[in-house]
Amino acid sequence: MPARTAEAAWSGSLQEGNGTLKLGSGAYEGAYSFSSRFENGTGTNPEELIGAALAGCFSMQLAANLSRAGFTVGRVHTSANVHLTKDDSGFSISRIDLTNESSVEGVDQAVFDENVAKAKGCIISRALAGVPEITVNARMV
Amino acid sequence: MPARTAEAAWSGSLQEGNGTLKLGSGAYEGAYSFSSRFENGTGTNPEELIGAALAGCFSMQLAANLSRAGFTVGRVHTSANVHLTKDDSGFSISRIDLTNESSVEGVDQAVFDENVAKAKGCIISRALAGVPEITVNARMV
Repeated sequence: MPARTAEAAWSGSLQEGNGTLKLGSGAYEGAYSFSSRFENGTGTNPEELIGAALAGCFSMQLAANLSRAGFTVGRVHTSANVHLTKDDSGFSISRIDLTNESSVEGVDQAVFDENVAKAKGCIISRALAGVPEITVNARMV
Repeated sequence: MPARTAEAAWSGSLQEGNGTLKLGSGAYEGAYSFSSRFENGTGTNPEELIGAALAGCFSMQLAANLSRAGFTVGRVHTSANVHLTKDDSGFSISRIDLTNESSVEGVDQAVFDENVAKAKGCIISRALAGVPEITVNARMV
């Protein structure tokens, strides 16, 4: 399996500089800055990319689990809230909250919950072991 | 500081289904699939988003460190290679390799290396504590 790639370039100092990010697939290339990361400026930031990676992985894993268990999966939608907080040692991602709504035919609550719990251990979630808390709030719709 | 957000939706089974990913900033929205993640299909995948987040964070942190140390930072470019491997317990991100080229005025090698080592502990790198190996190969150009 080939490695997945991405690149980033930053020019200048932290506050006055600016950067670009690019995905190896070519799907996206765009700007980021101090303001888009730590304030409310236009552009992307590493934290929302982490959120997208985790939400994407969790949704795919939950759909896979339910599908393998024999259920017909409609739409599995997950939003991620990535919390960046500052303490004495600087900034860190302190928590990521996932909120999921899934439409699946004929699953009872206990089976759904069991598959949600399994999906919580998806590839990206395991990679993010340095995030102190990853919560999942999932419900069937 | 507001939480950063992203969302993902997946419809259908693992191999026949398909998904979309969206960044909360609005900078990007696009498709992903089994094929774009595990084969060579068109679209993004969670692993390249992780690579972009890490390359972006590392570049910004290295530029910030060098700038704070009094040097004029030109371009700090970092590419990430994210390795997804399969073992008995399934797929996981086994290694991320960062390759950096930096143009900075008047820095000697030892000071550059010291700042690279510090940048290796950037926000996203710390969040990715579940990745067994993150390597950095950085040089001045």
